Amino acid sequence: MTNISIIGGSGYGGGELLRLLLAHPRVELKQVTSRSHLGEYVYQVHPNLRKRTRLKFSDPQALEPVDILFLALPHGQTQLKINQYAKLAPKIIDLSADFRLRDVDFYKEWYGEKHAAPEWLSKFVYGLPEIHRAELTTANYVSGIGCNATASNLALLPLVKADLLDLSTPVLIEIKVGSSESGAGGNMGSLHAERAHVIRTFSAFGHRHTAEVIQEMGVKDISLTLTAVDLVRGVLATAHAKVKQGVCIKDLWKAYRAIANGNPFLRVMKERRGIYRVPEPKILAGSNYADLGFDLDESTGHVVSICAIDNLMKGASGSAVQCMNLMMGWEETTGLEFMGLHPI
Amino acid sequence: MTNISIIGGSGYGGGELLRLLLAHPRVELKQVTSRSHLGEYVYQVHPNLRKRTRLKFSDPQALEPVDILFLALPHGQTQLKINQYAKLAPKIIDLSADFRLRDVDFYKEWYGEKHAAPEWLSKFVYGLPEIHRAELTTANYVSGIGCNATASNLALLPLVKADLLDLSTPVLIEIKVGSSESGAGGNMGSLHAERAHVIRTFSAFGHRHTAEVIQEMGVKDISLTLTAVDLVRGVLATAHAKVKQGVCIKDLWKAYRAIANGNPFLRVMKERRGIYRVPEPKILAGSNYADLGFDLDESTGHVVSICAIDNLMKGASGSAVQCMNLMMGWEETTGLEFMGLHPI
Amino acid sequence: MTNISIIGGSGYGGGELLRLLLAHPRVELKQVTSRSHLGEYVYQVHPNLRKRTRLKFSDPQALEPVDILFLALPHGQTQLKINQYAKLAPKIIDLSADFRLRDVDFYKEWYGEKHAAPEWLSKFVYGLPEIHRAELTTANYVSGIGCNATASNLALLPLVKADLLDLSTPVLIEIKVGSSESGAGGNMGSLHAERAHVIRTFSAFGHRHTAEVIQEMGVKDISLTLTAVDLVRGVLATAHAKVKQGVCIKDLWKAYRAIANGNPFLRVMKERRGIYRVPEPKILAGSNYADLGFDLDESTGHVVSICAIDNLMKGASGSAVQCMNLMMGWEETTGLEFMGLHPI
Amino acid sequence: MTNISIIGGSGYGGGELLRLLLAHPRVELKQVTSRSHLGEYVYQVHPNLRKRTRLKFSDPQALEPVDILFLALPHGQTQLKINQYAKLAPKIIDLSADFRLRDVDFYKEWYGEKHAAPEWLSKFVYGLPEIHRAELTTANYVSGIGCNATASNLALLPLVKADLLDLSTPVLIEIKVGSSESGAGGNMGSLHAERAHVIRTFSAFGHRHTAEVIQEMGVKDISLTLTAVDLVRGVLATAHAKVKQGVCIKDLWKAYRAIANGNPFLRVMKERRGIYRVPEPKILAGSNYADLGFDLDESTGHVVSICAIDNLMKGASGSAVQCMNLMMGWEETTGLEFMGLHPI
Repeated sequence: MTNISIIGGSGYGGGELLRLLLAHPRVELKQVTSRSHLGEYVYQVHPNLRKRTRLKFSDPQALEPVDILFLALPHGQTQLKINQYAKLAPKIIDLSADFRLRDVDFYKEWYGEKHAAPEWLSKFVYGLPEIHRAELTTANYVSGIGCNATASNLALLPLVKADLLDLSTPVLIEIKVGSSESGAGGNMGSLHAERAHVIRTFSAFGHRHTAEVIQEMGVKDISLTLTAVDLVRGVLATAHAKVKQGVCIKDLWKAYRAIANGNPFLRVMKERRGIYRVPEPKILAGSNYADLGFDLDESTGHVVSICAIDNLMKGASGSAVQCMNLMMGWEETTGLEFMGLHPI
Repeated sequence: MTNISIIGGSGYGGGELLRLLLAHPRVELKQVTSRSHLGEYVYQVHPNLRKRTRLKFSDPQALEPVDILFLALPHGQTQLKINQYAKLAPKIIDLSADFRLRDVDFYKEWYGEKHAAPEWLSKFVYGLPEIHRAELTTANYVSGIGCNATASNLALLPLVKADLLDLSTPVLIEIKVGSSESGAGGNMGSLHAERAHVIRTFSAFGHRHTAEVIQEMGVKDISLTLTAVDLVRGVLATAHAKVKQGVCIKDLWKAYRAIANGNPFLRVMKERRGIYRVPEPKILAGSNYADLGFDLDESTGHVVSICAIDNLMKGASGSAVQCMNLMMGWEETTGLEFMGLHPI
Repeated sequence: MTNISIIGGSGYGGGELLRLLLAHPRVELKQVTSRSHLGEYVYQVHPNLRKRTRLKFSDPQALEPVDILFLALPHGQTQLKINQYAKLAPKIIDLSADFRLRDVDFYKEWYGEKHAAPEWLSKFVYGLPEIHRAELTTANYVSGIGCNATASNLALLPLVKADLLDLSTPVLIEIKVGSSESGAGGNMGSLHAERAHVIRTFSAFGHRHTAEVIQEMGVKDISLTLTAVDLVRGVLATAHAKVKQGVCIKDLWKAYRAIANGNPFLRVMKERRGIYRVPEPKILAGSNYADLGFDLDESTGHVVSICAIDNLMKGASGSAVQCMNLMMGWEETTGLEFMGLHPI
Repeated sequence: MTNISIIGGSGYGGGELLRLLLAHPRVELKQVTSRSHLGEYVYQVHPNLRKRTRLKFSDPQALEPVDILFLALPHGQTQLKINQYAKLAPKIIDLSADFRLRDVDFYKEWYGEKHAAPEWLSKFVYGLPEIHRAELTTANYVSGIGCNATASNLALLPLVKADLLDLSTPVLIEIKVGSSESGAGGNMGSLHAERAHVIRTFSAFGHRHTAEVIQEMGVKDISLTLTAVDLVRGVLATAHAKVKQGVCIKDLWKAYRAIANGNPFLRVMKERRGIYRVPEPKILAGSNYADLGFDLDESTGHVVSICAIDNLMKGASGSAVQCMNLMMGWEETTGLEFMGLHPI
C-alpha cells in the first residue's frame, strides 16, 4: 500500500479527496490535517464518511513523511511552504491555484501579486490528464486545476486538437456553476435564503480561471462569463466559437469521438430523443466523467461546444486522483468507477 | 397619513415590513434604522425596493417621534429599551419574542432567563388577529408572534374553538420550515451547499414557540417538532390530535368553515381533485393568507389539521400590519391584498 | 368598469392574467374559458385565487361581447379564429406567438408553416411598451411577446437606442430559464425528478424567439442560446456584443440610465457591494420590473448586458396588462405595483 | 459469474438496479427488459450508464433462463405472472408490492383487491436484511420493501427490538419524501413548476406502506403521514412514540448502538455540534446506509426516532442487492460500498 496524507482536509475539495482515497484499493490514508477542526473525527465534518474511518483531523505541524502528499489549502498558502512540504514526500499533488500557471509574469497578471516560489512553477505539471497524460506518468509535482477552467478546456479540447477553430473570432465561454464551488467558507451571499433560486451572473469577464484556458488551449482571445445557479455540485461550460470555413458537422463528430475514445472519462452526449440529449452536470454528481456535446450552425460556422462536470470531481479531486493513478503507473480509472446517479 | 418608523430594518422581517408599509395607502414611512447598514439605501439590502424608495438606513439614536413604531430587533434587545421606545410613539408593534408571553415565570421557563421589563408584559396584546381581534382594536402595544407558533395556533384554532378535541391525548405538531426563518444572520449550516436539499429535523421538542401555543390554545400536553426543508419562505404545521368521541367529519367541516368565514385571511383548502388539494406554503409566498386543511380517521378519532403560511407574512410582518390596521380602525386587509403566485 | 374576458385561462399565462385582472381597479372580469377545466372554479386550477373569485371556467363557445378580450391560447390556435374573436371585442390583446412578427415570409422562415391570417399581421402592434409605447396608446390589437425575446430585447435596448454597438461582430445572447416557461402542459423531461437540479442547454441556436429580437432590434447577426436551470419563474438574458470604438463605461451608464428613467418598469442594477449587485430574476417573481445591468471590457470593447425578468410577468401577462393600460389611457403602472419579494 | 436479468428496467428502481449490478463484481447482467423502450440503449434512458454498458432493452417475451431474476414492474403485474417467472430462474427478487404481505386478508384490506397468487405469499421472505437476515440466507424468493415502510421500520427497530415502547400509546410516523418516490411515470402534480418548492402533505393516513410496518414491527396502533418536499432522492421518517416508564436516554443509546453494531448499513447519527447532528437523506444519495437518531423527553417519555435513507437504495434497489448478497452467501456489503456525497 502507498502511504498518503492530506493537508487541509476540512474543505469541500479535501472532503472529496478523503472519500476517494478511503475507497482507493492501492493507498492507505495516514493523516489529514485541519487547524479549525483539530481533534475532531473527520466524519463530524464530512458526515458521509461515518462508519468508514476513525481518523481524526491532526495538526499540520505533526505530519509524518509519506509517499504522496495531497495539498488542499486555500489559494496562496501552498506557495509559502512548498519547500517544507517537499521534504515530507517525493510526490505532491496540489489542489490549489498556486502552481497552475507556468509563467511568473502571467501569474502576476492574473493574480495581481508576485509568486512566492517562482522557481517551483516549472516543476509542476498541470493536472489535467486529458491534456498532459504522458507528462503525468513521470511527474513528481502535479498542480490543481480550476473547475471552470476544466469545463472550458474540455469543451474546447476536441476543436483545438483537431484544429477546427477560426481563431480570428473571439471565443466566448458561458459557465453556470453550483454553490459548492465557492467553498465551505461562505459569506452572506452564500446563505441559502439568498443563494437559492438564483441566476446570478457574478463575473462578466476577468475570472482567474481564464488564465488556465489561455495557457492550456493556446487561444488568446477568450473570455469566461460565470453565472451561479441553484445547484450544489456541477459546472456547465457552453463555449461559443467559429469553425474554419468548410468545417461541417461530420468533422465535429469525428473530433469529439476521437477525444472520447482516447480518454476513459470523456463521453459524447448528443442524442436526438429522450430526456437527456445534451451534457448535464445533474447526472454527474460524484462521478469523474466529463460529458461533451456540440452543435454547429453550418450557415454561419457558429459552433457551440458544451462540457458538463462535477466541479469537486473532474474539476478538482477526481482529476487529482486520476493524476495519482497515472503518476504511480496504476490503472487510470482506479477508485473512480462511480457512475453517478439517475435521477438525483 | 399616519407617520411610521421601523427600528431594525435590515433583517428579513424588517425588509418585509418595509415592502408592506411602502405600499400601504394610509401610512408614511419616516425612518428605518440599521446599525450595520447605516447610510446605505434600503434597496441595497432589500433589492426588491429599488425604484420604490430613496430612504437610507438611519441611526437608531436619531429617531424622531412618530404615530406608530415598529420594532424588528433580534430577541432580547427590545425589552432592554422599551421605556425609551415608548417615548417615541404612542403605539408600538414589536416583531420580536420579547413580549409574546403574558406570564413572567412562564417566560423564564421557556427562555431560560429573567425578563428585563416584566411590568410591560401585561400591556402587550398577542399579535394574532384571528385570536385577539377585539383587544387589538383598542391596543397600544402589540407583540410579535412566532411563525411556527402561528402555523400551529391556526391549525388548532378551529378544533379548539369548536371544542372538538379530546385533550387527554397529547397534541403533536410536526412543522416543516424554509430557510428564511433562520434570519439574515446565518451560520455555517445555513450555507446553500449545506442547507440545500435537506430534510433536517433540527428540534425534536422544546422549541420556544411551543410556549406561545400553550398560552394561546390553552392546551398543555403539546409538542412541536421542527424539520428544515429546501424552501426559502414557508411553514407547514401538521397537527395530530384526537377528537372527542362522536365527532365526525361534518363537525370538522362546520368548525373550519366557521373560522374561515370569520377571518378574511383564513381559507379552507380541501379538494378531492386537481394538483392543489391541501394547504401548501408554496403558493403563499408574499401573501397574508393562512390555508387550513384537515383529515379525520373516524375509526380512531385521529385528526390531522394542517396550516400553511408564509413565515415572513402571516407568521410575522403581514400579521403585524394586519394588527396595525385593526389598531387604527382601518379595513383589516388594507395593504395586504397580494394573492400569492402560481406557479412559483 | 371596463369589461374583460380571457380565452384560455387554465395555463400559466392565463392564470397570471387572472391574478392581475382580478386585482386591477379599472376592469371587471366577466368570463374565463377553458375546455379541459370547463365548469371548475378557477381557484381549483390557480389555488392562489381562492377566496378572491367565484368565477368558473366557461365554454369558449358561450362568450359574451366585452370591451377587451385577452387571448391566452397555445401557439397556432389564435390565427385560426381571429376573425371570430374580433367580433367579440373592439380591442384584443393576444399572448400567443401568432401575431408577433410583421412579415409573412419571416413568419414562415421561423415557424416553418404558412400563417393562417396574414392580413392580420399588420394590424397588431408588438406588445412591448418599452419599444412601442406611442403606438400602443392608439392600438386596437396587441400581440404577445416571447419571454426570452423580451429579456433579450431589453438587454439590447439601451445599447441599440444609443447606437453604441459595433454590429460587424455577431451578438450572442445566453439565456437561462425557469420551468414555468414550458407551460402547464409538460412532458417527461418536465417531471420534477428529471427537471430539478438541471443545467440543460436545450437550444444552442434557432429558437423561435430569435425572430422577435431580429425584428425589434434591427440586428441581424444574432443568436440565442437557451439553458434550463432549477427555478420556476425567471429569465436571465446575458447578451455579449461589441461596442463601437471609443465607447467607454460612462457612455453605457448614460444609455442605461436614460432607458431606466424613461420607463417605469426598467431599473439599472449595478452595485459594487452587497449581495445583489447584478440583475437577478430571483427577486422579481410576481413583479413587472425588468432589471438591467452591464459590464464593459474597455480593452476589447466586449460589452455584457444583462436583463432579468419574471417570464410570466414582464415576459408575458404583466406586459400585456401594461399594454392594456396604455391602450385605455390609464396610468401605465395600474395594477402592476407589486414589488417582488426578498428573500424568496 | 452469476447470471442475472432484470424485468422492467426503465423505471427509477430498475435504473438503480442496473447501476448496482453493472458494478457488482460477482454477477453478469444478461438482459434487461422494457416494453416502452424496446431496442433502445439502456444509457439513453439512464444517462449515467453511458460508456458503462452497451446493453439494449429487450423484449420481456424473449427472456433466457438465469440464476437470479430481478423484477421491477409496477404494482399488480408480478403476481399475474409469477409462475411463469419462476420457470426462468431458481431465485427471484421482486421490487414491487406484490409479495410484501404474508396474509392474504391483510393484503386485501390494504390493497383493496384479491391477491392473484395467494399461494406464493408464504414463499417470499420480506426483503429487509436488518429484520430477516437469517431467513434471507436460505431464501429463494425475496419480496420488495416499501421505501416509506423501510424508513419507518428502521426508525422503530431499535425501540421494538429492545422492547422499550409503551404500546398503549399510538405510534405516529411523519414521513417526508422526495420526488423520485412517485416514479418515472409522473402526472401533472409531478411537473417541476408544480412540484418544486412544495411542502405537500399528500397522505394524512391510510398509506399502503403502513401495512408493512404493522406486519414487521408487530405494532398495531400506528399511522404514517406523508409529506412531499423539494428533493429528488430521500426519505426521512420521524417516529413519535412513548417509552415504557423508567426508560432513560442511556437505554436508548444502548439499543441504537446495538442495532448499528449488528448491521453494516445502519449508523447512529446524534452529534452535539457541527452541521450534521441528525440523520439526513441529503448525504445519502446513492448510498445504502440508513442513519438513525433519537431524542427523548424524559419528563413525558415522548421519544422521537428518526431514520434517513435514499428511497431508491436502502428503500428499494440497494436492499434488494443486499438481499442477493445474503442469498448467495457473498459478503453482505458487496457492490454497495458507495459512501454518499458531501456536499450535494
